[in-house]
Amino acid sequence: MSHDDLRHAGFKERTRVEAARERLLDRVTPHDRTERVPLASADGRTLATTVSAPNPVPGYDRAAMDGYAVRAEDTFGASDRSPNLLRAGEEIGPDTAVRVHTGSELPAGADAVVMIEQVSEVRDELEVSDAVAEGENVGPVGEDVSEGQTLYEPGHRVRPSDLGLLKSVGLTEVEVRERPTVAVVPTGEELVQSDPAPGEVIETNALTVSRFVDRWGGRPTYREIVTDDPEALRAAIQRDLTKDLIVTTGGSSVGERDLIPEVVSEIGEVLVHGVALKPGHPVALGIVEDTPVLMLPGYPVACIVNAVQFLRPALKRAGGMPCEDHPTTEARLERKIRSEPGIRTFARVKLDRAGGDGDETTARPTRVSGSGVLSSVALADGWVVVPEDREGIAEGETIAVEDWEWSA
Amino acid sequence: MSHDDLRHAGFKERTRVEAARERLLDRVTPHDRTERVPLASADGRTLATTVSAPNPVPGYDRAAMDGYAVRAEDTFGASDRSPNLLRAGEEIGPDTAVRVHTGSELPAGADAVVMIEQVSEVRDELEVSDAVAEGENVGPVGEDVSEGQTLYEPGHRVRPSDLGLLKSVGLTEVEVRERPTVAVVPTGEELVQSDPAPGEVIETNALTVSRFVDRWGGRPTYREIVTDDPEALRAAIQRDLTKDLIVTTGGSSVGERDLIPEVVSEIGEVLVHGVALKPGHPVALGIVEDTPVLMLPGYPVACIVNAVQFLRPALKRAGGMPCEDHPTTEARLERKIRSEPGIRTFARVKLDRAGGDGDETTARPTRVSGSGVLSSVALADGWVVVPEDREGIAEGETIAVEDWEWSA
Repeated sequence: MSHDDLRHAGFKERTRVEAARERLLDRVTPHDRTERVPLASADGRTLATTVSAPNPVPGYDRAAMDGYAVRAEDTFGASDRSPNLLRAGEEIGPDTAVRVHTGSELPAGADAVVMIEQVSEVRDELEVSDAVAEGENVGPVGEDVSEGQTLYEPGHRVRPSDLGLLKSVGLTEVEVRERPTVAVVPTGEELVQSDPAPGEVIETNALTVSRFVDRWGGRPTYREIVTDDPEALRAAIQRDLTKDLIVTTGGSSVGERDLIPEVVSEIGEVLVHGVALKPGHPVALGIVEDTPVLMLPGYPVACIVNAVQFLRPALKRAGGMPCEDHPTTEARLERKIRSEPGIRTFARVKLDRAGGDGDETTARPTRVSGSGVLSSVALADGWVVVPEDREGIAEGETIAVEDWEWSA
Repeated sequence: MSHDDLRHAGFKERTRVEAARERLLDRVTPHDRTERVPLASADGRTLATTVSAPNPVPGYDRAAMDGYAVRAEDTFGASDRSPNLLRAGEEIGPDTAVRVHTGSELPAGADAVVMIEQVSEVRDELEVSDAVAEGENVGPVGEDVSEGQTLYEPGHRVRPSDLGLLKSVGLTEVEVRERPTVAVVPTGEELVQSDPAPGEVIETNALTVSRFVDRWGGRPTYREIVTDDPEALRAAIQRDLTKDLIVTTGGSSVGERDLIPEVVSEIGEVLVHGVALKPGHPVALGIVEDTPVLMLPGYPVACIVNAVQFLRPALKRAGGMPCEDHPTTEARLERKIRSEPGIRTFARVKLDRAGGDGDETTARPTRVSGSGVLSSVALADGWVVVPEDREGIAEGETIAVEDWEWSA
């Protein structure tokens, strides 16, 4: 975009991405609503409290091997050539061993297990051909998890293996944060939900953003289309001030785009208007009665770029969730990407994955500029970020391709 | 594990991981059940058919800029010093221009748009100070997506941005594969669902595996615990032969572990019994009446390793879904990992993420051996794979840490 365009769009100054994000996040307060959910429903949820183990694992001294539980002292001095003689019984006593299997409880009085390979049954007697030390082949109480041990800190996002551990210590439910709520409000007089006449456009941005919100751990409310009218926009924002976040997706023309920031500045505060990123600079970020309002541009690609850059971290903070890095794939850039210094530039690429044998994964930019072409995102495999201090990326350079469409 | 242990466990020969996986996947047939779902429910689902665009995007010639729609020829020769004079009207005609906004339909008869910056309104006339070529500043029908264009091939997993594209071409639902069904059957006489007495163990494996199945796109049925009895095990397997896959999670002792492969070999076929991996070699893979049966070991860590190595690809194949690589993080290994040549070894690590300023991300093995300690997985951040042709990994080496607990 040329400087003329910039002036035309009315952005006197564009805020850098990091500064804009910081200004927004400074005003996002994590909500404090929690709920108790059964373990099977806790996958992917965020722990609200420190979780400690109410019970140890294992809960009892157990045999770590198949064999005979013994008093260790009864085996002292035993060897292949001179085995100790014990007898098998139901209870431990002097020179009396009890058959045990891996995982079974160690009988009272026993303090070690002789592996079955070291024991020969000879008529009524057991020939023990190796000595064991106290505690040998025994898994003591709390070997894996001790009673009261801290397992997780608040903010941990529960994964399948965590559920196993939580259940093993005797928990049946956990306290998690409620999913942060997000109103997603499509705006634009040209928008329709289906069957567009000439001049009309099918609403897609708020659908896509709603699904992102869901994947990022939030609870989206996909609102009906609001037309480009200050009254209607104000009402739409005020209706959702009970949500943790409000997102509007804008109409596609410059005039319409400014309507929403104007409305927000009347009933609240605009923190940022215009960010030094491409595509998607005409984003605005504001606050109305403590509820952050993210005003995303209407061009589909610009909308997605801004949702990932601003909505995702805001949602994570509102929900007290960690904001993890996107998964990346290393690839060799097949064609240079142009960018202007000072502007963080996002380029869509298609990956050609390495097939092995020293093959390299390569990334081909699908379209370097243009913020309206949804197919260039939907048919791409990921994104390359050109930082502000660079002027493009040269062909052949090794780059990290970010996957923005994963679930976290 | 020593050679003595190996002999003791009764595995004459262990199959390599790749060979075992191939033997299994050769016997997994993708199911052919599909369903039509509305777009909002299609996120994360797998397309069953080729999807083409029923309508072009845009559906009409549209203005790409704010300005005046014109017949290009009426602007020819115009310049700053010698503007062409046109008049504004409601319809296009010779020397008649129509005001348009970005995205609005190009009026009939117009073939270009003059940007608003190039037009001065002087009383009733328009001074056009720049010539435009035919098609200039016009987004023609089908510029983004042409009618009938193929958008996706079968097997594509739908992402949020795909939903936008699918909706923009006029689709309201898509045909997706049904989620593959998986019975997850916990077995072991020592298992209980809660309140374990000494000698009893809380069931965790089947819970964890069920949640993995869900994250991988399958529909798990988490069955009740089956005791170590051939009749009961046979009945449990036969009950679920209508599922796409059956997974059993085993008891923890060698004797019990062999019960299920014995049952499977009686009513079906055991394809693999014992795999050259660690932890978790005593896995068995079989088929009963065309339904793959994965017999996972009962040690929690061994169970997870085998679920990821065998169940995930089998599930993906059964559902016609792509089996994507796990996301990885590069890290410097803080402490060496030991392994035996010929055995693919999986080590849990905890990551210490780089904080910037040339900092490196480091990975510390949480426990190199031991397959029973669930806390070592649940408290770890990922896995390092040591291939069969290596003997451990040295401290300081840069390695890829796999995240197994993502959703795909």
